[in-house]
This record gives sequence, C-alpha cells and structure tokens, in this order.
Amino acid sequence: MSSLPRSALAGGERSSARFVPADPAKVAFTGGFWESWTRTAREVTVPTQYKRLQEEGFLEVLDFDKPPAPLVRPIQPSGLSMQHFFDSDFGKWIEAASYALKSHPDAEIEAKIDGIVEKLASGQMADGYLNSWFIRREPEKRWTNLRDLHEMYSMGHLLEGAVAYFEATGKRRFLDVMIRAVDHIIDTFGTEPGKLRGYDAHEEIEIALVKLWRVTGDPRHLKLAAYFVDERGRMPSYYDEEARRRGEDPAAYVYQTYAYSQAHQPVREQTRVEGHAVRAMYLFSAMADLACETNDPTLKEACDRLFDNLVGRQLYVTGGLGPSASNEGFTREFDLPNETAYAETCAAVALGFWTHRMAQIDLDARFTDRLETLLYNGALSGISRDGEHYFYENVLESHGQHRRWTWHYCPCCPTNIARLLTSLGQYVYTAKDDELAVHLYAESSAELDVGARFVRLRQETRYPWDGDIRLRLTLAEASRFAISLRIPGWCREARLSVNGEAVDLAAATAKGYARIERSWANGDEIRLHLAMPVDRLYAHPAAGEDAGRVALRRGPVVYCVEETDVGTEPQRLRLSAGAPVEPRFDADLLGGAVVLEGEALEAAASGWGLDLYRTSRPALTPRPFRAIPYHLWANREPGAMQVWLLEA
Amino acid sequence: MSSLPRSALAGGERSSARFVPADPAKVAFTGGFWESWTRTAREVTVPTQYKRLQEEGFLEVLDFDKPPAPLVRPIQPSGLSMQHFFDSDFGKWIEAASYALKSHPDAEIEAKIDGIVEKLASGQMADGYLNSWFIRREPEKRWTNLRDLHEMYSMGHLLEGAVAYFEATGKRRFLDVMIRAVDHIIDTFGTEPGKLRGYDAHEEIEIALVKLWRVTGDPRHLKLAAYFVDERGRMPSYYDEEARRRGEDPAAYVYQTYAYSQAHQPVREQTRVEGHAVRAMYLFSAMADLACETNDPTLKEACDRLFDNLVGRQLYVTGGLGPSASNEGFTREFDLPNETAYAETCAAVALGFWTHRMAQIDLDARFTDRLETLLYNGALSGISRDGEHYFYENVLESHGQHRRWTWHYCPCCPTNIARLLTSLGQYVYTAKDDELAVHLYAESSAELDVGARFVRLRQETRYPWDGDIRLRLTLAEASRFAISLRIPGWCREARLSVNGEAVDLAAATAKGYARIERSWANGDEIRLHLAMPVDRLYAHPAAGEDAGRVALRRGPVVYCVEETDVGTEPQRLRLSAGAPVEPRFDADLLGGAVVLEGEALEAAASGWGLDLYRTSRPALTPRPFRAIPYHLWANREPGAMQVWLLEA
Repeated sequence: MSSLPRSALAGGERSSARFVPADPAKVAFTGGFWESWTRTAREVTVPTQYKRLQEEGFLEVLDFDKPPAPLVRPIQPSGLSMQHFFDSDFGKWIEAASYALKSHPDAEIEAKIDGIVEKLASGQMADGYLNSWFIRREPEKRWTNLRDLHEMYSMGHLLEGAVAYFEATGKRRFLDVMIRAVDHIIDTFGTEPGKLRGYDAHEEIEIALVKLWRVTGDPRHLKLAAYFVDERGRMPSYYDEEARRRGEDPAAYVYQTYAYSQAHQPVREQTRVEGHAVRAMYLFSAMADLACETNDPTLKEACDRLFDNLVGRQLYVTGGLGPSASNEGFTREFDLPNETAYAETCAAVALGFWTHRMAQIDLDARFTDRLETLLYNGALSGISRDGEHYFYENVLESHGQHRRWTWHYCPCCPTNIARLLTSLGQYVYTAKDDELAVHLYAESSAELDVGARFVRLRQETRYPWDGDIRLRLTLAEASRFAISLRIPGWCREARLSVNGEAVDLAAATAKGYARIERSWANGDEIRLHLAMPVDRLYAHPAAGEDAGRVALRRGPVVYCVEETDVGTEPQRLRLSAGAPVEPRFDADLLGGAVVLEGEALEAAASGWGLDLYRTSRPALTPRPFRAIPYHLWANREPGAMQVWLLEA
Repeated sequence: MSSLPRSALAGGERSSARFVPADPAKVAFTGGFWESWTRTAREVTVPTQYKRLQEEGFLEVLDFDKPPAPLVRPIQPSGLSMQHFFDSDFGKWIEAASYALKSHPDAEIEAKIDGIVEKLASGQMADGYLNSWFIRREPEKRWTNLRDLHEMYSMGHLLEGAVAYFEATGKRRFLDVMIRAVDHIIDTFGTEPGKLRGYDAHEEIEIALVKLWRVTGDPRHLKLAAYFVDERGRMPSYYDEEARRRGEDPAAYVYQTYAYSQAHQPVREQTRVEGHAVRAMYLFSAMADLACETNDPTLKEACDRLFDNLVGRQLYVTGGLGPSASNEGFTREFDLPNETAYAETCAAVALGFWTHRMAQIDLDARFTDRLETLLYNGALSGISRDGEHYFYENVLESHGQHRRWTWHYCPCCPTNIARLLTSLGQYVYTAKDDELAVHLYAESSAELDVGARFVRLRQETRYPWDGDIRLRLTLAEASRFAISLRIPGWCREARLSVNGEAVDLAAATAKGYARIERSWANGDEIRLHLAMPVDRLYAHPAAGEDAGRVALRRGPVVYCVEETDVGTEPQRLRLSAGAPVEPRFDADLLGGAVVLEGEALEAAASGWGLDLYRTSRPALTPRPFRAIPYHLWANREPGAMQVWLLEA
C-alpha cells in the first residue's frame, strides 16, 4: 500500500465545498444500456488494446536497452512521427485499465501495467526527463520544439495513467516516476529567471497536473498547471522564439496559425473555439479545473463564452466536433459537413471531460446536456458493439466507404473511449457536503459520500429507451441534505415525486437541476418521469449542409438510417413533414435498442435517361423506413448511412 | 518558311474523308461573348502567363549552364516535385501563344518563345532526351520511374507546343528538337527486343504524337502513339517491374491502384471512368484520335462506353469532373460533392479535347453538347473576367473561402484554359470534302475549306444570351455540299430555315445535327432559332448531394447565386417549385450577361436560441434573388455561392 498521506490530500479537503465525482469503482451498472457497454469495455476493449500495442510494435519503443527499430511511420510535414507520442497511448491504456481494475481486480492486466512501468522507469533520465522517443532517438532535441513534438502531452498522459493506477492499486512506483518527471518540468519551465517560458502546443499535461495535485496536495503541481494555462498565447510567442533558436523561420509553421493550438491569444481573451479540436477540449477542461480549484471567475467566464460559441455554432447534433481533417479541428462557424465530418472520437470524449467539469462548478445542466449527447452519440459511435473496432472520424453520412478498423496509425481514440467507459460512474453521480447530484440516468447501484454521510443509491430505469426512473436510498440514519436531479434539456414534459408525493418541478428546478432538500430516510424513493417522444430537429439556417433536412432524436439518442434497414441509400429518402415516426424496442438489434419506424418517400431513378440531369423532378414513391441509434451504425453490413434526412 | 513537305502531309490526305477542325486563325470572333473572352486571352492571359513563369522562377530550370537552384517546392509523397514537370508549362504556354500568334503576329512573344526553344535545344542530350529536371538534377534516374515522374508527359506538352509553333510561324527549330526527342523515345520504348515496354503514367504524349504525325506524316509517330495506348494496362504491370528494378515494393505505391493512371486494365476493357481526371481525359482523347485515324472500332466503342459512364454517373452539371482532391479525380459513381468539388479546370478543358474529337468521328451531338457545357461553365469558370486570375478547383458551392489566384504551385490550369481559348475557332466549325459542320454558335467570321471549295461564313448571333442565329455564306460559285448544324440537346423547340424557307427539323436531324444538303449559292442565308427558356435541372436520385435541389440553366449557361447579389448566403434560400424565374440582360455585369431573377424564400435565423438545433422549422420569408452565369462567379466581392439551390 501507498505510504502517501492520502488522508491529508488537498482533494479530501476540497470535497466538502465542491461537487466531487463518484469513485467510478463505487458505481456499478447493474443492467441495461451501460452495463453492457462498460462490461465490454472492461472485458474486451482493455485486454485487446494491450494486444494491439504488442502486435503493432508500440511496446518496442520502451526497449531502452535495445537500439531503436527503423521507423515504420514516416515523419510528417509537421515534423512529427506518430511514434513521438506512443507514450501517450501507454498512459491512456493504463488509465483505462486502472479504472476497471479497481472494481474488477485482474492480476494479468496489473502485471502488464507493472511491466510497462518498469520499462519506463528504466529509461527515465537522471534529471527526471521521461519520453521514450527523445531518450532513445533524439536526446539532443528534447525541449527544443514544444510547438510540434508533444513531449509534455505524452508525459501528461503517462501522469494521468500513474494517478489512476495509484488510486486503483495503491502502488506508487509509477506515480513516483512521474512525480520525478514533473519535478524536472518544474525545474525547466516557468516564469522564474533561467527557466524556459514555454508550454506544450498539445494541451494535456494541465489536466494531469490537477489530478496529480488532488492526490499529492503539493501546491507546486497546481501552480504548474496554472502557469501553463496562464502563459498560453502570450505574445511574442514562445513558439516563434523557439523556432528561431532552431534556425527555422517561424512563418514556415505548417499549420500557419497558433490558433491551431489555442495559443494565438491569452486563453481568457479567446471567444471562439478554434484549431485542433482535442487540444481545445483538453485546454478548456484544464481551465474548468482551475476555475474550480482556484475560484478564478475569469477562467469560468472564458469557458462559458467558448461553450456558447461551440454549442451555438460549431457542434454536431451528435455531440461530435471539429469538422475538418486538415487541422483535425474547427474551420468557419456553422461549417458542419456530414459526409466529410472529422468529428474525432477523442474530441467528443474530451468534450465530455470539459462539460463534466463545467457542470460541477455551479450545477448547470446546459453542460451536462451536451455530456449526455456525446455519451449516447458522437463519442460512443467511436467504438463498435463488440468493443474492439473503432472509428477515428465520426461522420454523419456515408455511402458505405466508412468502416470500423481494429487499429489506426494514430491510435489515440481507442484508449480515449476506453477510459471514458471504464470510468463512466464518475459522470453519473457527484456529491459535496450537503448535496448529491444525479447527472445521468442509468440502471445502477452507487455508494456515495455526501459530506460525512454514506449513501447507497439504487437507480432503476430502462433509460435511454424509456424515461421512467426510480431512485431508492439506503441510509444508516435519516439526514437532511439535497438531492439534485438533472431534468434533461431535450425533455419538454417531466414529472417528479418523492415517496409518491409530487414535487413542483418548476419551483424546484434551477439551471436544469431539480433540487430536493429534505431529511432523507432509509428506503425513500424518488420517481422521475421524462416524456420521450420522437423529436424532429432542425439546424440553424446558417448550417447550410443541414438545410431542408431533419434529424430524428428520442430522449438523448440521435438516430440515423442505414441502407441495410431500408434496402436503398437513405440519401434517396425524404421524410414528409407530418409523417408519423414511431418508436419500437427491437430486442434483436445489436443487444437491443429502440428503433424508429415510419414511411418515407423514395426518389426513384426509374425512367431516368443516360444523362445525370434532367428537367423534371424524380418521382417519389412511399417506402417504409427504420432508423437506428446513431451510435450503433456500421456494426452490420456495409452500406450508406445518413443522420440528416431530407424533408419532403 | 518550313522546308517540310506540308503538301504531302498525312493530315492533308486525311481531310477529305474526315471532319477536320477549322484553322483557329481562320475563325474570327467578331463581337459578343467569345470575342471578349478570346481577345482577353490573347492580350492579357498569354503575356501575363509568361511574366508569371519569369517571376516565379520557372524559367530558371532552363538555365542548363548554371547549377540548379535549391528546390523551393518539396518532393511530394508520390516522389514528384512540381519542378519535375515545369517543361509542360512551357509547352502549354507556347502552344497557347502560338494559336494567338498565327492570327495576331507579335514579335515580342515570338522572341520569348524562341528564347525558350534555344534554351531547351541547348540542354537536349546527344541521344535526343529532353527533360530539364532529369538533365540537370537526376540524369541517372531518367526513364527509371514512368509511374511517378511525368517525363513523357512533359515531353508531350513540349511537342504539342512545337507543332503549334511550327504551324503558326513555319519555323521548324522547335519541331526538329522535339522530333529528335521523339526519335529517342522510339529508340527506347516499344515491343521490340531490347526496348522498354513502358508508357507514361500521365497520358499526354499520345495526343502530341498524333498531332506530330499529322504534320510529318511519319508513320512511326502514329505507331508510337498507338503503342502507348495499346500497351497501357497490360499485366503484369510495367510499373511493378519498374518499381522492383528501383528496389521498391510495388505495393507501396502511394496511390495504391493503377486505376489512378487508367493503367489497371487494357484500355479497351475499361468501362468506368476512374482515377486522375486529367489523365483519363488525355487518354480518351488519344483513343478518339486513334479511333479516327486508324478506323479502330474497338477504341471508338471503349470511348462510347466510358463517355456514357461519365455523363450518366460522374459529370457535374457544369461539365466539371473529378470530385476528389485526394487523387485529383474520380471516386465512386454519383459522388458529386459541391463545396469540396475538385473539378479541376484542366480536366474540363481536357474533356473538351475528348468530346471535340469524338464528335468528329460520326458527327454526334451528345459529345458536342458536353463540349458546349464545359465551354460556358466548368472550364470557363477557371479563368477570371480580367484574364489573369485562376481557379484550379471549380467548386459548385462556396462560403466565400474560394478566391481566384494569380498563380498556383502547380500551374497546369492557366495554360490549359489559355490554349483552349486561343484555339477556340477549331471547336466552332469543322469540315470534310462534302460537308461543313457548325458545332457551336458564336458571332464570328470563318474561312473554311470544304473539300476543294473555299467557303466564307458569317455567323451573327447574340448567343448564348439569345437563341437566334443567322448564317450567311460567301461562295465563289454555287456548289452542292451539306451544312450540318448542331441542335443543342438542351433545346426543346428549334426552328430552321434556308433563305426564309422552313426546314423540317425532325426529318433533317440525326444524332443532334440537322443536315442540309443542297446546292449552296453566294449570299445564302440560314436562320436558326433555339428557344431558350429558363430550365430547372434535377440530378439523378443517386447523386445525394443534389437531392431536393435544383440548378438553373438557360441555353448552355448554368447559373449560380452569389451572396453579393442577394445579401445573404444562398445556402439560406429555397426556390418554390412554381416560382417564376425570368431572364434579363444586365449590361453592367462584368461585360454584360443575362441574369435570372425571381423570388426565393429565405430561412430566417431570427428567434433562434443559443443552441444550433431546435425542434421547430426555421421561418421562411420571401426574398428577391438574382442568379448569374456560373462562369462569372468570384469576379466581384468575396462571398458565398451556390449552384444547386434547395427547392422549397
């Protein structure tokens, strides 16, 4: 066991005043939707990902005692090879595995993690520096190019892995290795004379440092995170200086603008979400962490502005984000192409990190609503139903050219979706000294500390297929505190009762959370009913790709039409404005799901001449259609798919 | 003057039996649409392109007496630098300039061409090899990589330039240089023992060789063209062998499939237009040439099949083609994205070469119809109204991000559109011994040899703004022959008369040409009326990007809506099914053009919340709109543009 004074942790003190996420190991999904997905993540995804790391030769980069193998993946125009940041994949995999380990011990997985940790430890330099690429291949280049080479990004992911592994097992070997690496970074970077005033262009370590601080309570760790956030975007740019030191012209930067890394202006002045989507979400997550930990209203305000910009102008209906492959990120506002959507799985996962953090600051459901959207749609679509095939890009339309893959030349997404799923419990419940918040609805049992109280909570529901939720409390003794339940933004008709007695929702609800403060007793029961009709969604008129089109949503689940269900390309279908669309639970569909059924009109090609174009409209003929949850697409026969259906 | 026996040319013999294009120097556009465009091409485009070649350092590659300058443009993943094929730019510029020179002598331009020719001649190797890149930089690599390095492509363009310059001036210096280069190719490639059985992956030299043959009458020149076409796609692939000789794995080919170069199967077996669009069009043009010159029905049949595939499944409504930037070419059938359309100017120009050749074989207007489409739309859009700004990609939709440029890192398009415009007369009229064909309508005067007869033709029309055409003949003496006039495929109501007497069009017309055979006398007058209503075009239902949308066309001209004319993004507009759209000539629009006007509905964003999506439709409010000819777009203020308008 750890000798670290866990009882004296800053995180422990902090928990009384602010919402703290449930320990994912203390939230058990006991059936239904998430039980199936999280079990697969634990039983299939985590072990098969280690296998891929082996098969694909990733782990060889840790063989510090052997000469490095020739590069398989070439150096990109940015100056980066994927292999530069393989360490990040180990970090994320260890993190994902650790969340699973804590509730489901697995000696084999633990031995594999220990193996990676020992290799990392063996390679760590005397001054604490730790990055397998630079140590083995280009030691002279370390810390010479924060703009392109992801050194701290990789260390950040190792650090997150180390914290998670420590929390899961109590073993502190990895944590100590990473604390030494952080000490080295503290010695190297900062505003003090003699230090480099740099910061990594790929944000990540900021999040990791806050996590570390919550474990160690060492103020230097929080301070370093704050330094990186505050320094970002200061002009003249560190990246310009650094490029000149390398003898390069800063103007030759391949991405042309530091907005690519959210480093074009100080973070508090940024008002538009720009650049690489994952970087942006990681930065904003760290900003939310610091806003919370340091009570900095300027960071909260910046996050609020950026969030408004995102949800009002740049977010896919699925919760995906970052439309363009060229910068893996944002372009102009309202640019939301469907078939060429990049919408990287990692970006949706990272939006989850950000929105989750934001929601805790003042319990605001506009953030949790988006968290829920991406969980059921744009992030979950990144992993197959079998738990071992992936999408990097999450398009909203396909002609069948998009298929899930077992691995990727840049495999950042698989471990990201894995760590989201294996830690999912923390997103469902959070608590502070006098309040328990229920953010998401899912069949589950949870053990929670609400201040000094120990509360056991049982949630029974078929959500997201059905909007009826029953919560039952187990308490040692009656106690006054509040329970806040999110009333989803998609819901236009909700009913809430406690022990059969109706609660006045309008009076009880603020910022999307219904707050019930009372003396709770053992066996108390809360019932929540969320009416779940089929919604037709319309996009803002400036989003031209969706003009004249409709997306179907029921509850938090966005739907799509797949060719295999309708026998024609969904692109040929049109949905009449008034046509009824009915939900039906299909137990045979990929583990069971509610599908939507109705009649559409199909544009027929019959009678079409040799020419692609003619002067008369195609005839429209009725055709039954079925829509399935978007997250389930591309799990059956290849074929066309569409989220935004043309309205007739 | 040339000492080549021009009277003994094969081309001379050939002209009696087959349609031969008018000498562009003998067709004068005397006013109206093409007078303006072709004069600008001659007076602005040709001279400014030479200036660009100078300013951008292209001409320096011909300084064989100096060491080569460091590369500015990097070697691409394909192994190719743009500089590899700068020779092609000189060739195309000389060709474009030569067509203009013949009718409009210009000593300054001629001196510039002579300067380039002398430099080329000075660099030519003793064995005839001529390619500035390989001679100066990588002589050891010559003929080692026909798959990637464009050696014959570059020589082909030089050869076309040499033929055009010889025909314009009678000077044979350049032609002789290139004949020596061709001799070297004949010595090097072919089926004979000891020769390489290779062919260039970028087709082009095949076209040039046929042109050369028409000038020299040397059967080896036609035979070499036929060899390259016949050899293409033979398995096992020459490119595989060649890669192995270089010590490379053929499977590592960056484009993955030889369909990229139409070399995946023998040309006569190809049924789908695939790969790089310009390559495909150059190949098919050469196939049409050979089908015509060698009376090879198998080549004609292959071309017919490929043409059906193109116009039925892969051609933009503008005549643009090749939707994807990644292979500069074709993807799946019916993949016609509008905003990301690649639709390279060169590809549309080259489709012009192909369709023009096909139309002459048996006077079939389905080819000429497409030629006309690209001339007024998808090719002409590649050059600005001022004649010195260009588009490489011709998108059918924009949010204002697409602007014309003065030069391009790969400047193949400017000289291609230039050579099309300076030689435009040849596309208007062709003739054989007993027949004169009028393919296009344009205010013009022409001097034509119809067999032994000399015919002067005066065409008066405001086409394409108006469908009334008057043709008057000047003949030394009355003579019996046929005049065939194309009745455009877009026209649903035509009237034809000779000296005021109606011609029964249904009886006279075959394959889209109305043929009037009679004894023609001096002063005879033909009148043709082509009704020109505004057409609404609909795309085949499989072209999902255009589903529910309409394109406006009047006569041969396709229209678009630009933001500057409607004060809103055209993506917000919807056109009601029955709404009237009226043509009006606007003399102030970029030299004068017919615009289309009417009332559309605008999707309003007022009342929209913070979220991009909502459950109610946007309100639609009436808004006047104006559409302009697509070829005129992006000549005024930047802004959004759309060809395919949503139908309400």
